Amino acid sequence: MDWRQSDTDYVVRLDRGEEIMSTLTRFLVEQDIRAGSIIGIGAVEETVLGYYDARSGEYLRKPFPGEAELVVFAGNITMVDGAPFIHAHAVISDASFQALSGHFFSGVIAVTGEFQLRTSSLDIHRELDSAIGLKLIRFG
Amino acid sequence: MDWRQSDTDYVVRLDRGEEIMSTLTRFLVEQDIRAGSIIGIGAVEETVLGYYDARSGEYLRKPFPGEAELVVFAGNITMVDGAPFIHAHAVISDASFQALSGHFFSGVIAVTGEFQLRTSSLDIHRELDSAIGLKLIRFG
Amino acid sequence: MDWRQSDTDYVVRLDRGEEIMSTLTRFLVEQDIRAGSIIGIGAVEETVLGYYDARSGEYLRKPFPGEAELVVFAGNITMVDGAPFIHAHAVISDASFQALSGHFFSGVIAVTGEFQLRTSSLDIHRELDSAIGLKLIRFG
Repeated sequence: MDWRQSDTDYVVRLDRGEEIMSTLTRFLVEQDIRAGSIIGIGAVEETVLGYYDARSGEYLRKPFPGEAELVVFAGNITMVDGAPFIHAHAVISDASFQALSGHFFSGVIAVTGEFQLRTSSLDIHRELDSAIGLKLIRFG
Repeated sequence: MDWRQSDTDYVVRLDRGEEIMSTLTRFLVEQDIRAGSIIGIGAVEETVLGYYDARSGEYLRKPFPGEAELVVFAGNITMVDGAPFIHAHAVISDASFQALSGHFFSGVIAVTGEFQLRTSSLDIHRELDSAIGLKLIRFG
Repeated sequence: MDWRQSDTDYVVRLDRGEEIMSTLTRFLVEQDIRAGSIIGIGAVEETVLGYYDARSGEYLRKPFPGEAELVVFAGNITMVDGAPFIHAHAVISDASFQALSGHFFSGVIAVTGEFQLRTSSLDIHRELDSAIGLKLIRFG
């Protein structure tokens, strides 16, 4: 990984073999980034996507082991239990060009990953909404 | 819905049962936001996507009633006939993880919706382009 | 094409018949934009998408001649051999609403294209990574 900061924005390059969510989250901790948005493109493998089943209150998790374009990765940064948390979705596709998409649980960089972060000074955290079964955004 | 503003940026949370386009548009009116961009993730139901058929000059509208991840919602804000207007596209997917996408006409939040707005001071509006059959961006 | 600038942000409208990558790249040269991010929506035809095959070290290129919604176009701007370069991915879909996606090589605006650019003062370029076979981001 390598990165540069310009005012409230960061450009972050992840490298082959780095797991996206854990690597970016560790970066947020080190930089003390507590809120913001992320968008990225690249290529991934060992991707795990999710679909939230509101009736069961649980995520369906599906692994996509093969290499794929990380067509778009879009997420936000909030604080959960005192640590920065990334909520992200992604679209991926392989040589078929058919797009697969969902909640992004994890994925390993296959070629490169190019992420743009925009940080915010807002006080945003997540709290469990027991009716929904997920930690939802709460402010201030 | 709840939201916070930081300089030119807003974070907006929409809640279960809120229709995205009408709720966000009302928010723009209340905040006097006249230009900018929006990106969001969440979960939706009763989604209506569109495909613009340039030959007929009309949108094909297709409803997707079931719950789906709102994988990515991307749009812009301009003024149309004196009121703020959101032009947005979206990618959605259900438990099959197969991505469906198109022009975003409407959709109701199924779990939560997390939107990032970046506002602009630019004077941007839309005027009907009679050759195209749509209201296209015009400046100043 | 028409565009307006507000501080570090630009809104760019591309018009029917304009090829996206060449038109935007020429705009970057004229405006001396050397780094940043782009997101866009619109409609395209004659689209060429790519999938990078890491084993062969080559892109598979696939043309999609027909009209399609440009559901989302997401990319970044860096310098390559002294000139601005756009690395972009895209999701497109036609009247079937089935999303197709990948690396975005080229595409011609079919109806309109609405792009938001956020520029950066960072010194970001690309250098060939011989192990990967692609020009990857390098800083400073």
